[in-house]
Amino acid sequence: MYSLSDKFAGMKPSATREILKVTSEPGMIAFAGGSPAIEAFPAEEVTKLSNEILTENAVSALVYGVSEGYEPLRKTVKEWLKRRENVGTDDDTVIITAGGTQVMDIATRILTSEGDTIICEEPSFVGSLNCFRSHGLRLAGVPIDADGMNIEKLEETIKANPNAKFIYTIPNFQNPGGTTLSLEKRKAMYKLALENDLVIVEDNPYGNLRVAGEDVPAIKSFDTEGIVIYAGSFSKILAPGIRVAYAVVPSKMAGAFTIGKQVSDVHTGVLNQMIVSRWFDEYDVDAHIERIKLIYRKKLNLMCDCLDRYCPQIEYVRPEGGLFIWAKLPKKVDMLSYVKELIKYKVAVVPGSSFMTDDTAPCDYIRLNFSTPSEENIEKGVEIMGEVLKKFGE
Amino acid sequence: MYSLSDKFAGMKPSATREILKVTSEPGMIAFAGGSPAIEAFPAEEVTKLSNEILTENAVSALVYGVSEGYEPLRKTVKEWLKRRENVGTDDDTVIITAGGTQVMDIATRILTSEGDTIICEEPSFVGSLNCFRSHGLRLAGVPIDADGMNIEKLEETIKANPNAKFIYTIPNFQNPGGTTLSLEKRKAMYKLALENDLVIVEDNPYGNLRVAGEDVPAIKSFDTEGIVIYAGSFSKILAPGIRVAYAVVPSKMAGAFTIGKQVSDVHTGVLNQMIVSRWFDEYDVDAHIERIKLIYRKKLNLMCDCLDRYCPQIEYVRPEGGLFIWAKLPKKVDMLSYVKELIKYKVAVVPGSSFMTDDTAPCDYIRLNFSTPSEENIEKGVEIMGEVLKKFGE
Repeated sequence: MYSLSDKFAGMKPSATREILKVTSEPGMIAFAGGSPAIEAFPAEEVTKLSNEILTENAVSALVYGVSEGYEPLRKTVKEWLKRRENVGTDDDTVIITAGGTQVMDIATRILTSEGDTIICEEPSFVGSLNCFRSHGLRLAGVPIDADGMNIEKLEETIKANPNAKFIYTIPNFQNPGGTTLSLEKRKAMYKLALENDLVIVEDNPYGNLRVAGEDVPAIKSFDTEGIVIYAGSFSKILAPGIRVAYAVVPSKMAGAFTIGKQVSDVHTGVLNQMIVSRWFDEYDVDAHIERIKLIYRKKLNLMCDCLDRYCPQIEYVRPEGGLFIWAKLPKKVDMLSYVKELIKYKVAVVPGSSFMTDDTAPCDYIRLNFSTPSEENIEKGVEIMGEVLKKFGE
Repeated sequence: MYSLSDKFAGMKPSATREILKVTSEPGMIAFAGGSPAIEAFPAEEVTKLSNEILTENAVSALVYGVSEGYEPLRKTVKEWLKRRENVGTDDDTVIITAGGTQVMDIATRILTSEGDTIICEEPSFVGSLNCFRSHGLRLAGVPIDADGMNIEKLEETIKANPNAKFIYTIPNFQNPGGTTLSLEKRKAMYKLALENDLVIVEDNPYGNLRVAGEDVPAIKSFDTEGIVIYAGSFSKILAPGIRVAYAVVPSKMAGAFTIGKQVSDVHTGVLNQMIVSRWFDEYDVDAHIERIKLIYRKKLNLMCDCLDRYCPQIEYVRPEGGLFIWAKLPKKVDMLSYVKELIKYKVAVVPGSSFMTDDTAPCDYIRLNFSTPSEENIEKGVEIMGEVLKKFGE
């Protein structure tokens, strides 16, 4: 009998996505998801745009596209990123992908070989970690402080891993940590990458969802040497089901990145790309982002206030944006038992161990999502969390 | 400075897709594409379906989906394949992918490691070959006869490549060969795979486009042992820009395949999948296929007749379906010079060498696509091909 590749033989489905299956059960309060707020989707706009595109010229949305992406969208994204975040130079190439995870996947394909190492924050987004694992890579985690990756530990980790190929970072409202990498640390990380022949993969799906504090410049915005692949997405500001994201790729990697896209899925759906392109043409995307931030601000503050009220034993750093709160349980409470108990009370959260490079090591954290549940359910769910804590002697 | 992975350092963009860029120049007669006939797209139906879906419940098309695919579409495809092709058992899982190439990519990810070998037809589809190459795999090509892969050579190739992991075959109207694998050979291939612990990846994007002769049962239809991954696509019968295809995966590989999809791009666009699902609900897809076959039959016969008339020196096996004719040039004619000369006369064809496991070896073939050009351009283009042949002393 045939056997699976060693790379896959030990892999499990993402715990988050497995728990998501539970969260769709009737009556479940879902703090486990990673979905943006449904009420923030520009659903009417998408309907209008899609109808226009197809009614005017359906064939244009049905033919094969090019692997780099729909040209008008690439141009629009390039200009928008430059204006909004000072990201991208004339030398960089914008390539459209089918969601943000595909940027990590293609970057991994073009930069690594089996047995190489990726340096990442610990904890980090399980979807990306699983992507790296599926390529037979080792993960070297660097702990995070309240202002992001610990730079001393990063330096040690780089020294200890001569076969590391890139640093993977989520600089804004990190998933799951909620932390934002300070400008000083961004510069230090860039310097270390440059000195050690490392690429940085800067994954920024949440950057537009800042609800407090000041924007911090992207690492890509000072990438004079062309060593940063920047990933952004329309999943959080438009909608995730449409699967449109983008990579800003330095010229030396752009050819390989395009081939990586070509051999993955040829190109991203054309109608999907045209809808996003036309969204920029007919609407004010920046104004839309300002509007949806109000939704996120309210939900984030509500969940934090509820945690303070119902679960004062739980420690967390209040994030300045994004979708997640990284909550530390009291020492007495066994994390996995607590998560399982919560499911009995119809509250779903993600075990923090899912986000660790070694997901079997002890972990006191859980990840809470505040964007998906209603305000009513945020209050109700956190109250239940507090009651269940009491059952654990807290 | 960082360096690209060895897997990508030597890779070039697909020659076909590079030539496609030339074909979009004004006035170019495009025999180089791989697009289905645009006049066969159900464009009005897609417009109506998409409008209905979004108008009734846009949010349902905008939320995250599950990695396996949109459940109603998976169910419909499973029933349709069983009825139409006797493909798929209760033990098999249907997984929706973003186009057919992604099936090859995920199969490769879960079954192989760098340095392994894939056994394929020689010539074969350059998109799949490049996908395999991008994973650091070796290609072992087996020549094709008029009735598909040469089975004696397949047996020799299996013996010579103990680290081969799967056989990749396009059984119907092979790309670019145009040949169809006989039932006897399908059975022989299956037996050899079983005896040698090999998986078969059966890539069948063109099977529905048969315009002459009788259907041959899919290898998957007699896969009692669960060793065949079957790939089908809506690119050729609906439209390619929508990027919806499917894999029928034996139960033992289904978990890994789902993870492979998850780490690639999380899931296929939801609206895209809903459009296809609803297409089955509201229209008679089998009747649509019968209608579009008429378009393909006419174009295929026209191109063959024109070749016989204007280029009698060119040899080819008349395909019974699909999109391509694999044309052998007379000995005197240098293939690459001929292709370049044709471009000067505004006719684009693909050099046959693109489809070879070693694309630098001598090759007398070109690939002609008859589905994209108009009938007028088929006649005009083949006439030019004949005139340019004369310039080469033919």
